[in-house]
Amino acid sequence: MISTAKWTVAAWVLAVCLPIGVARAAKPPRPNVVIIFADDLGYGDLSCYGHPTINTPHLDRMAHEGQRWTEFYVAASMCTPSRAGLMTGRLPVRNGMCSLRQHVLYPDSAGGLPQSEITLAETLKDAGYATACIGKWHLGHRSEFLPMKQGFDEFYGLPYSNDMKNRRVPPKKPGGKASHEYIGVPLMRGEKTLEQPVDQTTLTQRYTKEAIRFIEKNRKRPFFLYLAQTMPHVPLFRSKEFVDHSRRGLYGDVVEEVDESVGQVLDTLRRLKLDKHTLVVFTSDNGPWLVYRQRGGSAGLLRGGKGSTWEGGMREPAIFWWPGTIKPEVVRQMGSTLDLLPTIAKLCGAEVPLDRVIDGLDLTPVLTGTGPSPRDTMFYYRGNQLCAVRHGPYKMYYFTQPNYRNRKGIKHDPPLLYNLDHDPSEQHDVAKQHPEVIEQIREIAEAHQKGVTPVPSQLEIR
Amino acid sequence: MISTAKWTVAAWVLAVCLPIGVARAAKPPRPNVVIIFADDLGYGDLSCYGHPTINTPHLDRMAHEGQRWTEFYVAASMCTPSRAGLMTGRLPVRNGMCSLRQHVLYPDSAGGLPQSEITLAETLKDAGYATACIGKWHLGHRSEFLPMKQGFDEFYGLPYSNDMKNRRVPPKKPGGKASHEYIGVPLMRGEKTLEQPVDQTTLTQRYTKEAIRFIEKNRKRPFFLYLAQTMPHVPLFRSKEFVDHSRRGLYGDVVEEVDESVGQVLDTLRRLKLDKHTLVVFTSDNGPWLVYRQRGGSAGLLRGGKGSTWEGGMREPAIFWWPGTIKPEVVRQMGSTLDLLPTIAKLCGAEVPLDRVIDGLDLTPVLTGTGPSPRDTMFYYRGNQLCAVRHGPYKMYYFTQPNYRNRKGIKHDPPLLYNLDHDPSEQHDVAKQHPEVIEQIREIAEAHQKGVTPVPSQLEIR
Repeated sequence: MISTAKWTVAAWVLAVCLPIGVARAAKPPRPNVVIIFADDLGYGDLSCYGHPTINTPHLDRMAHEGQRWTEFYVAASMCTPSRAGLMTGRLPVRNGMCSLRQHVLYPDSAGGLPQSEITLAETLKDAGYATACIGKWHLGHRSEFLPMKQGFDEFYGLPYSNDMKNRRVPPKKPGGKASHEYIGVPLMRGEKTLEQPVDQTTLTQRYTKEAIRFIEKNRKRPFFLYLAQTMPHVPLFRSKEFVDHSRRGLYGDVVEEVDESVGQVLDTLRRLKLDKHTLVVFTSDNGPWLVYRQRGGSAGLLRGGKGSTWEGGMREPAIFWWPGTIKPEVVRQMGSTLDLLPTIAKLCGAEVPLDRVIDGLDLTPVLTGTGPSPRDTMFYYRGNQLCAVRHGPYKMYYFTQPNYRNRKGIKHDPPLLYNLDHDPSEQHDVAKQHPEVIEQIREIAEAHQKGVTPVPSQLEIR
Repeated sequence: MISTAKWTVAAWVLAVCLPIGVARAAKPPRPNVVIIFADDLGYGDLSCYGHPTINTPHLDRMAHEGQRWTEFYVAASMCTPSRAGLMTGRLPVRNGMCSLRQHVLYPDSAGGLPQSEITLAETLKDAGYATACIGKWHLGHRSEFLPMKQGFDEFYGLPYSNDMKNRRVPPKKPGGKASHEYIGVPLMRGEKTLEQPVDQTTLTQRYTKEAIRFIEKNRKRPFFLYLAQTMPHVPLFRSKEFVDHSRRGLYGDVVEEVDESVGQVLDTLRRLKLDKHTLVVFTSDNGPWLVYRQRGGSAGLLRGGKGSTWEGGMREPAIFWWPGTIKPEVVRQMGSTLDLLPTIAKLCGAEVPLDRVIDGLDLTPVLTGTGPSPRDTMFYYRGNQLCAVRHGPYKMYYFTQPNYRNRKGIKHDPPLLYNLDHDPSEQHDVAKQHPEVIEQIREIAEAHQKGVTPVPSQLEIR
């Protein structure tokens, strides 16, 4: 038999030595936060999500050590609105960061994420975090919209997409023809342009170096790193070391270099003994750009891709990693980039804005293993058009997109209905068998729409 | 410095303690062999191959501890020819176990795998192995074709598919109409029928119990277990414990019960300390039966399913597990069920028949980590029609199948060409860009066809 004294000592040892988060009563210290956001990566493009020829050992290891989510959604199937959703925890329809006429911001756009919005970076900066945006921004490139006006201490990266190279020059005479001026995408530090057009072959490497520098510099204080990779967005570039690295061709080379970058970031955290004090989230802004054929990625078993509200456009690989706190598992529950703001605010002791609608929900119960995801509903917008609603296993469509170029979509009245649990590839419409589900989701959609106040689109401002 | 004596001791300790196979010079002892063969499971149906809602923790663990192959092929996209290929290491076209008019054997078939064929079971039995076939046979149900005439000491299972329930009764008068007699699928032990029609709800459990009993009985001698699951072939059945077990519905329940069965088999090997002395292979006979919609599985990112020579019909999940010998990894090389006979014969000191063409190749270099796969070419037959040939990353099509019911297929002249490395979903024909590859694969196909001697079909015998 073990004496009471021994038990007391054992309990004390356990309390001290057990991984953070296992002892539920103890509040874990505030973690650092790293969000790695790929660009146009498909649901099926990582080895751990089933791709046969793309080799992603670092992301596979991250997934094996952490949580691999199978039903994680972005806020929209296009760059700008998706990023706005992540940054604010709000659907882009609430702040004008979407439009059906124009999917994203272009070099001649004059709008951006309104200053009145409160970003994840602002929330964390207020809570004492060092903050950096490294990579692609795409939430407004005029001075007042750049990352350092939105809560970031530092910015190193591109103001918009890597395929954007022309600026529209308005007609000289009224009624005249607009022309286009070649500019190429700039690499910026803060508000200064370092290089234009940027040499994209070394971009992934340079982002990684900057990320490591930022982590090292802030090793003694809480930090938030938003590492928004430019790749694998077309046009595809990789460094010399990654030429013919992958059996998947150019696209695979590029994804494997992003994987290498993830490995370097995680290795840095391990080396600095910050791994148990850092939440790292890996996901992407939207699905694969299928119109680019072999230069675009794969949504795996999901239907559709970038620009559509089929699952392939908005369901993304998502890995949450925080050794000692997050238990390794496959998470088959719903989550969204919209949820990152409230979740991270909760973990970091930061404040969620109370004066506005936040669409994100707190996922900390899932991360700490204390409860299920609070998310049971997802709204799928394309521009400001509500196209589909998922509630539980069922997804109802008002509109579907026949192809990438089609803007208006096909209207469905009565709506289509898919059971995503049984039919993740959205092949079998079950609307006729479940009128009661249609009814229920219609009510959810209508209640939601009543709560959305129309605002002018930021994307159409010139 | 360490003295020579110490080094000698260290070397001795290493030689004794190192996992079998790491010390290359030492010949590993003959392993037991377990082949678990699912029925109609799709490439995308396991969690470790990317399915979002089917939960397969035992197969995921097996994959994590062993080799998960991403380019593993069956010999045909239908039950009977696929099984004939696995059993003999020979393409079914060589022994008449295929036909374009009739895909498989039916209850009124009089043919079967010819006695002149040498099966994997015969090879291993000759080498001193105890052998058992538990599960679905489907290589002939007349007495002379049953497992115990083909090298198995024991047989417990179904002689053909679980959806086969009628026997054709020939017309009583010449020119009269044939009728059908309901019989239902029998459960047999040896050549004796135990139960007809069989209660399929407990079939997976009963197979598992029989498998464990066989392993326990033969724990002290080398054994070969061929565990050919009846599930998830339509009609789908699972035990009470698995009703509503899965979020994927009935199909998911059934796959999760197969996963549970795999877990029980591996646990038995661990419990008996046979895990380091047993090679376990898990795969399936062909792709998902898509015409059954939600009752059929998913080929993940692959095109097509059961009955087609698109990748989804013939590329299967495949996991090789042998702790201590097989190093955990993802294998992105080609392999086939045709290769199991020569590979297993090599590992087990059994003899590969020398008097006939064997299409299988020896994969032991991949399993032991000593070299690459010798397989660089795969022939895709439908019946006795050569439809496609893969060589390296390229797959050339003479015929494709527009749908499951179509027997002849669509002829392509010039052929189609896909780069499976870049385009695993077979979406982008690159024939025009690579006439030299077409030329090369044509030559390979013609040389192969010259080596195939036509034999009468066993499937059409009544």
